[in-house]
This record gives sequence, structure tokens and C-alpha cells, in this order.
Amino acid sequence: MTRFASIADLRAACLDLPRGHAAKAAAVASRESMLTKPPRSLGRLEEVVEWLGLWQGRNPPRLDKVEILVFAGNHGVTAQGVSAYPAEVTAQMVRNFAAGGAAINQLARVAGAELRVVALDLDRPTEDFTSSPAMDESAFLAAVSSGYDAVAPDADLLVLGEMGIGNTTAASAIAAALFGGGGARFAGHGTGIDASGLERKRDAIDRALARHGAILDDPLLVAAALGGRELAALLGAALAARHARIPVLLDGFVCTAAVAPLMKLRADALDHALAGHLSAESGHTLLLEELGLCPLLDLGMRLGEGSGAAVAVLVLRASLACHTGMATFAEAQVSEKDA
Amino acid sequence: MTRFASIADLRAACLDLPRGHAAKAAAVASRESMLTKPPRSLGRLEEVVEWLGLWQGRNPPRLDKVEILVFAGNHGVTAQGVSAYPAEVTAQMVRNFAAGGAAINQLARVAGAELRVVALDLDRPTEDFTSSPAMDESAFLAAVSSGYDAVAPDADLLVLGEMGIGNTTAASAIAAALFGGGGARFAGHGTGIDASGLERKRDAIDRALARHGAILDDPLLVAAALGGRELAALLGAALAARHARIPVLLDGFVCTAAVAPLMKLRADALDHALAGHLSAESGHTLLLEELGLCPLLDLGMRLGEGSGAAVAVLVLRASLACHTGMATFAEAQVSEKDA
Repeated sequence: MTRFASIADLRAACLDLPRGHAAKAAAVASRESMLTKPPRSLGRLEEVVEWLGLWQGRNPPRLDKVEILVFAGNHGVTAQGVSAYPAEVTAQMVRNFAAGGAAINQLARVAGAELRVVALDLDRPTEDFTSSPAMDESAFLAAVSSGYDAVAPDADLLVLGEMGIGNTTAASAIAAALFGGGGARFAGHGTGIDASGLERKRDAIDRALARHGAILDDPLLVAAALGGRELAALLGAALAARHARIPVLLDGFVCTAAVAPLMKLRADALDHALAGHLSAESGHTLLLEELGLCPLLDLGMRLGEGSGAAVAVLVLRASLACHTGMATFAEAQVSEKDA
Repeated sequence: MTRFASIADLRAACLDLPRGHAAKAAAVASRESMLTKPPRSLGRLEEVVEWLGLWQGRNPPRLDKVEILVFAGNHGVTAQGVSAYPAEVTAQMVRNFAAGGAAINQLARVAGAELRVVALDLDRPTEDFTSSPAMDESAFLAAVSSGYDAVAPDADLLVLGEMGIGNTTAASAIAAALFGGGGARFAGHGTGIDASGLERKRDAIDRALARHGAILDDPLLVAAALGGRELAALLGAALAARHARIPVLLDGFVCTAAVAPLMKLRADALDHALAGHLSAESGHTLLLEELGLCPLLDLGMRLGEGSGAAVAVLVLRASLACHTGMATFAEAQVSEKDA
């Protein structure tokens, strides 16, 4: 028995969302205006601490329990030759996560975050979505529920990441289904596929969009038909965080595409989420524009695993340290701006 | 007796610069290519760790001793009504630094860096450069020498910052003198001056450029005539770091303008420096373009104090943690890219 018994159940949960704590955000902003710096001169550091206060409902906010959740899944569409790496790398990388050898292990430590990796049926890839839906309703709801239930309700911040050979193809297909443009618009080089591989990837997406044309106006059915288990889990985790009013940092292209159906269902559904970074994967820029999200960092990263968002946690820590540690003009006896 | 007895002495030191350790950078890059990630997928995290190796001459690089140097000075040009804050704020903020209440105190702690603040004759502002050179040769050389001698020769990384009411006017004047365009090109709102203040600022710069027209082709004389003590000290510190092959993170507009004369004297003079961030102060974008520098961060910050560069230290720490902590493909038994 999964948390969501039907698509209708899940849809209802996606439409019934709490708002943030506006009064707490205002209190955070009020203190920011008294600190020893010209107004707004810390730029996005000020914006993000107010956002933390808005969703945590705390003044000051805190970052004591930062959780990184990385979901892993395998994809039937790899049969179409869409990735530069063999599909067994997904499971190999999950073992690398467990052994502490991946980028995200190092970045989690630097960010002071707890890393949990959830491998979703790696020995049962999704169906090849060029010929049938990637997941049937029950497989999709199980994956969404796994993601939902993985979120610790007492986290101060949730960082989302993923691993799955073939999943930039799934992400591109979802993005194209939701926002239009076909395979050529969102597909990029992923882990490093060559020109002919990119052609195969675009073609696979276009065939999938034609094959599943009947359900493209339903964001949740799109996520089931064109996504993957780890993408569905990301959607579930972002939804759980919203219901618990936990702020979320999104990682790159796959992560953003995975949660995009939520915003198609309700325009303010990702107000509790920030884009941690802009991925070098070409579709990410377009997708963030479609969603109206402005990334914190742009470091040319395109690794996934939650790596870009984990670096962005450091910006949040800097922001919070300024907010809680700085003296006010009155405390420091510093003259304010000339009238 | 200062370290540099004459402008000619200083000029000779600016022209005699060591290069980086290319073999060490190559060794760092070689290890990066073996780590469990698609090649170059960590983007600028890979670039910066190679840069640290290049200048430190260490493989792996280290960030055990990170030094933030903040220089403070006062400016006679404030008499022209060019700042939103009264000049006494410089000294008040230096006391705030000492008491631990400023943004840079919090950011230094988060970055694991040691903060030192060097106040340069705050009770003796430079001359108002609309009517005479800001500093005579001896005052300029003393300030450059103070900066040079402040650098700890065993630092693994030097982060530069400044504080000085009026110093975006000096920085704009230097930038316009070196790269052309007059007061309208580089002057911005600084700490938050209004439209009429900006007009006064542009006008003061244009009058200064006219007044000092005879020396505008000499970058060091420009730094003396249009700069300030903290800007001269920043130039000296960046030069000392280069002679000691210590990598440098530059902060925002004032910091970048202060070291720009070095690059005018020798095109590769700032190869040991990275732009930590892009300031929201409008002239910074133009100046970084002139210098060919690509900032690590763009967070809308415009505070100075080394604050943006201090946040960028966190990116370097993330980069180094990945480089030293990640497993190689062979160690983790992960399959490499398909041939």
C-alpha cells in the first residue's frame, strides 16, 4: 500500500498546498534592514535568508539539519543508445555513494549536510518510453510515494539530487511535453554523448512525444509516461517538503524537469524551492526560464547527484551567518545613510 | 623607509613577475580526469583546483591558511558630495570589524579564513583629486608598501577587500583613466547615492580626468593621483602575492580597479588572481570585461569588505574537497565512458 492510492489522490495532494509564513519573512527582512551595511547590499544573501524564514516559519531561520536526498533509477530508453555510459553505471555509482567516493559525498561534508541515497528498483528499469509508458500507474505512484516518505519532517532544508543513466533523455521528454518544442529544444549532451548520440536522443524523444500524444496535457501522466522512478521520487519529495513547509534546493536539469509537473498543476507550487545552480546541460536554461526560477550559482557544473545544489547550501550558510551574526547600526554605533 | 623607494623601483617589481608551476597544474588536471564523474562535469570547480595547484605549486593544493586582508582608507573627494554616507563611517566600520559585527567577520568564519584589517591613516584623508593628486609619490609608495608587507608569505590563498567612504569614486576614476569613457562609463550608485549624487560623482571624475590628463598614460601615476591609500595597498598586496606565488581572490569593483594598473603594466600580471564575484555596482561588469576576468559568483552583492570574495572561498573549498576526496574510476570499479 503506497501513500497515494491513485493519480486522483496524488493530484488532490498537488493542488492542496500551504503558503509560507509571511510574518516571519517580514521579521527577517526587518532585521536585515538594521544591519551594518547599505540596504540590500548583500543582494541574494538577503533574499535567501528571508525565503528560509518564510518557509521555516522561524526568525532567525536555522540550518542545523540539512538533508540531501539522492534518488537513483534505471531507464528502458537506454536501449535507444541515448547515453555515453552503460546502464550498469547507475548501480556502480550507488555503490560509490555508499563507499563515500562520489562528488556528492565530499560536497555534503563541506555543506554540513546529511546525505541519503535511495535506489529505486535498479534491477527493474522503466519501460522504454518510445514504445510504451515508462511506468504504469502503480509503478509511478510507488516511486512518488517513496520520494514523499523519504523526507524527514524536521529537516531545515531539503536538497534534491539524482543519478540514473539515461535520465537526461527522460527529463528532456518531460520538459518538451510540458512546454513544447520537441526533442531538439531540450535535449543536450548529458554525460557527454557525441553528435550522433544526440541525434538518437532527439529522435527517441520525438517518437515518445508522438506515441504518448493523448496524455501530454496531463502533467502527472506525463511524469509517469516519460519520466523515471527517480524523477517521480523527486516530485514526491518536493511535494512532501511543501506540505511540511521545508525549503528546497533544486539541483540541475533532471531535478528541475522532475518537479516541473507540480508547477504546471499549480503556478505557486515551487515557491518553496530555489534553483541551486544553472547546469551546463543546455536544456536547463530554457526550463528555468519556463518556470521563472533564477539560479543561485552558475559554475558550469553538469554532474547531477545534487552536486550543484550542495554547493549552493554554502551560499545559504553564508547568508544565515550574516543575518544572525552582524551588528545593527545602533549596536555598532555606525552612522546611517545621509538623509 | 618603505619597501619601494621610488616609482621606478615599484615599476620594476611590477614587471618582474614569476609564472605559475605548470607541471603541478597538469598533475592536478590529470587526477581530475580519473575521478568518478564525466570529464569536466564539475565545470569551474575543476578549473579552480587546477589554478590553485598552478600557483601554490602543490598537488594536491591546500587551503589550510586562507587570509582575508581588508584595507581601509579615507578620501578627500568626499568633499564633492559623492557618497551616501558620511566619511566618519570608515573609522566606525573599522571598529565594527574589530568588534566582529560586520558582514566580513561572519563570512570569514564561514569560509574558515583569518581576517586582518589594516587601517591606513584614516585621520589623514587623501587629497581631493579634483584639485590635486590624491597622493604624492611618498604617500602612494608608503601605502603600496603597507599592502605588500601585510601579505603572509605562507598563505595558501589571499582574499582582498576594502572599506572607504568615497572609494567607488576613486575606483571609477582609475578605471576611466585606464580604459577610457569618462565618469559616465564606470560611476555607479556605490553605497546607494541618489541621481543628483551620481551626477556629482560623474562630474568629479570628469574634472579629475581633465586635471590629471598629463599622467593618464602611466598606470602607477594614475593609481597615485586618482586612487586612495586602501586601493594602493590592494595593489601592493596583489603584487606581493604574485611574487610569492600565492593565489588571490579579488572582491568587487573597488578591489578590481585597484589592481587593474598591474595588468596595464603587464598583460599576465593578474593570472594568479580570480574574480571572486560580480558586484552589482555597475562599473564592475565593464571592468572585468576589460581585464578578461570571469567572476565565480553573481549574487547581486555590492558591499565591499571582501564579502563577495569570501563567499567565493566556499566554492574553492568545495572544489578542493572533490579533488582530494573523490574515488577514481578504477578505485570505485565504475565503468568509464563508452568508446
